[in-house]
Amino acid sequence: MVAAAYRPGPRNLITDVAELRVGNAQDAALKSGVTVLTADAPFVASVQVMGGAPGTRETDLLAPDKSVAAVDALVLAGGSAYGLDACSGVMEGLRATGRGLHLGAALIPLVPGAILFDLLNGGAKDWTQNPYRALGRTALEAAAADFALGTAGAGTGALAAMHKGGLGSTSLLLSGGGTVGALVAVNPVGSVTTPGERHFWAAPFEMNGEFGGAGPDRAAGLCAPPISAKSKALFGQRANTTIAIVATDRALTKAQCHRLAVAAHDGIARAIVPAHTPGDGDLVFALTTGSGEPASDIELAEIGHAAALCLSRAIARAVYEATPAPGDLLPCYRRP
Amino acid sequence: MVAAAYRPGPRNLITDVAELRVGNAQDAALKSGVTVLTADAPFVASVQVMGGAPGTRETDLLAPDKSVAAVDALVLAGGSAYGLDACSGVMEGLRATGRGLHLGAALIPLVPGAILFDLLNGGAKDWTQNPYRALGRTALEAAAADFALGTAGAGTGALAAMHKGGLGSTSLLLSGGGTVGALVAVNPVGSVTTPGERHFWAAPFEMNGEFGGAGPDRAAGLCAPPISAKSKALFGQRANTTIAIVATDRALTKAQCHRLAVAAHDGIARAIVPAHTPGDGDLVFALTTGSGEPASDIELAEIGHAAALCLSRAIARAVYEATPAPGDLLPCYRRP
Repeated sequence: MVAAAYRPGPRNLITDVAELRVGNAQDAALKSGVTVLTADAPFVASVQVMGGAPGTRETDLLAPDKSVAAVDALVLAGGSAYGLDACSGVMEGLRATGRGLHLGAALIPLVPGAILFDLLNGGAKDWTQNPYRALGRTALEAAAADFALGTAGAGTGALAAMHKGGLGSTSLLLSGGGTVGALVAVNPVGSVTTPGERHFWAAPFEMNGEFGGAGPDRAAGLCAPPISAKSKALFGQRANTTIAIVATDRALTKAQCHRLAVAAHDGIARAIVPAHTPGDGDLVFALTTGSGEPASDIELAEIGHAAALCLSRAIARAVYEATPAPGDLLPCYRRP
Repeated sequence: MVAAAYRPGPRNLITDVAELRVGNAQDAALKSGVTVLTADAPFVASVQVMGGAPGTRETDLLAPDKSVAAVDALVLAGGSAYGLDACSGVMEGLRATGRGLHLGAALIPLVPGAILFDLLNGGAKDWTQNPYRALGRTALEAAAADFALGTAGAGTGALAAMHKGGLGSTSLLLSGGGTVGALVAVNPVGSVTTPGERHFWAAPFEMNGEFGGAGPDRAAGLCAPPISAKSKALFGQRANTTIAIVATDRALTKAQCHRLAVAAHDGIARAIVPAHTPGDGDLVFALTTGSGEPASDIELAEIGHAAALCLSRAIARAVYEATPAPGDLLPCYRRP
């Protein structure tokens, strides 16, 4: 009784979801960057924060009981709390094109964002003017259906427990029509691979060798204390985070987007061990570009399942696509 | 760079955590039952609700900002909302022994509880007097260090997607001292096994063949729509739930217990696919029997990791230990 597997969308990127565009901007010397997701029109979104150390902006308005109906862009950024300035740059860029919430003569672009910690990753952090505002605007202006993975955007300076982290994305086509996608910057305290660093935890869900095809680890008994070269060698367990966006073109209410974000966190749990620790700021934004009759709860269950699958795959793909750069503190998965 | 694996505690049950006792009561004709966890003294606890369809009682007082410092027992019960009466029976039993919160001359046993849906599982549900109050008191009076798994207590009437569900428990010894354990009643919409129904999703974490030793599935590409014999044949996707308790004897604050509950949900995500759906009431209680200096955040990260591992293993063990009974609607894992 095996169901036919899902297929990825044509790009295997979150931009397979209709109307979405993603842009990256990064600074190689800074070893950091910004990723912006936007759409042709404002979109319904919510968020679920599950890590113990989040860094966020404009996330409160995403709660289902808050009045804002739709937002204009979402930001994932490096730079820890400094990276929240990327949202300001994105707001400027949107304002320049007349995008935002109109309240009388006022125009307010709504740009929730989340950051990851990459301040101790070997990059040049001695700036005197916060660079994230400009990176945010540049990333917005680069937004397109195609964008780079791995060492790019918000994933530029990311590190996982044993490997260089990065930016990942995947998609899949729902059996009943519609698309689901994920976008993630992977910088967790936990490991994306089983001991030995060859098999991804997400391997059971891999499609078409999208992260190397090493397959699942055959070992059992992987019930052991966490190992982290990052925590050991670098800066303890306080400076991490996996920040993600999942999206669908199936119509959802704002409350259903919240439930979608909750379900998608399972994709983090399955791809990173451990996850959701006190030193991770793990969170997931969930959005829809769909309109019309919202999904039923049974349809929402499948959309959430698909989002968790996409997010697990995107996490492995982020690490798989990372590329070496001068001053790296951890090896790349493909060039250890 | 492989760390030594954890070892389970001597019983491989949540009662390896000092001072804890667990009792079951069940009714074979009803195909339902109750599991109660209590301790020698009141204990600090919190909860995280992640499913879309929870059924709970006295969970609000477990939020870290609420005033109650400790509770007297926790209840897992079948019976859907009717099962919440089990807490009343446990309160009566505790009151009879002088246990509870003293406020002047008043005595108030504090007994948070959660239920799972087993009203359409083939049992005799035509009672005229709610049976769960008596089952709760009986379960409390049975509480001991040893207790039955599988078709017992709150797991008596449980069903997973493809198999009979049940009650599961495991423990492990932390490398730095202390014990972590999990207790769970497994009744999810999702499946605990990969397609083919032989390999548990939790297999990478299995210790000492505790759920049969079939090992991990070697297949990749398990990126497919969910399959559920339960949903298909029985009653849709609205009537499920995985309810769990994780515990440690390491001292924690109430807020740290909340974070422990959050981390433990990853154990559900890794052992059940899909989990945390709109039709699941998935929740985790987390408690400590420890006292003294609370754990550091780094210690809490390991305790949370250990709790997620224990909970994944306990979920597989619940299904592995299930035994056949007249009128069953789904096969047992070991006797398909």
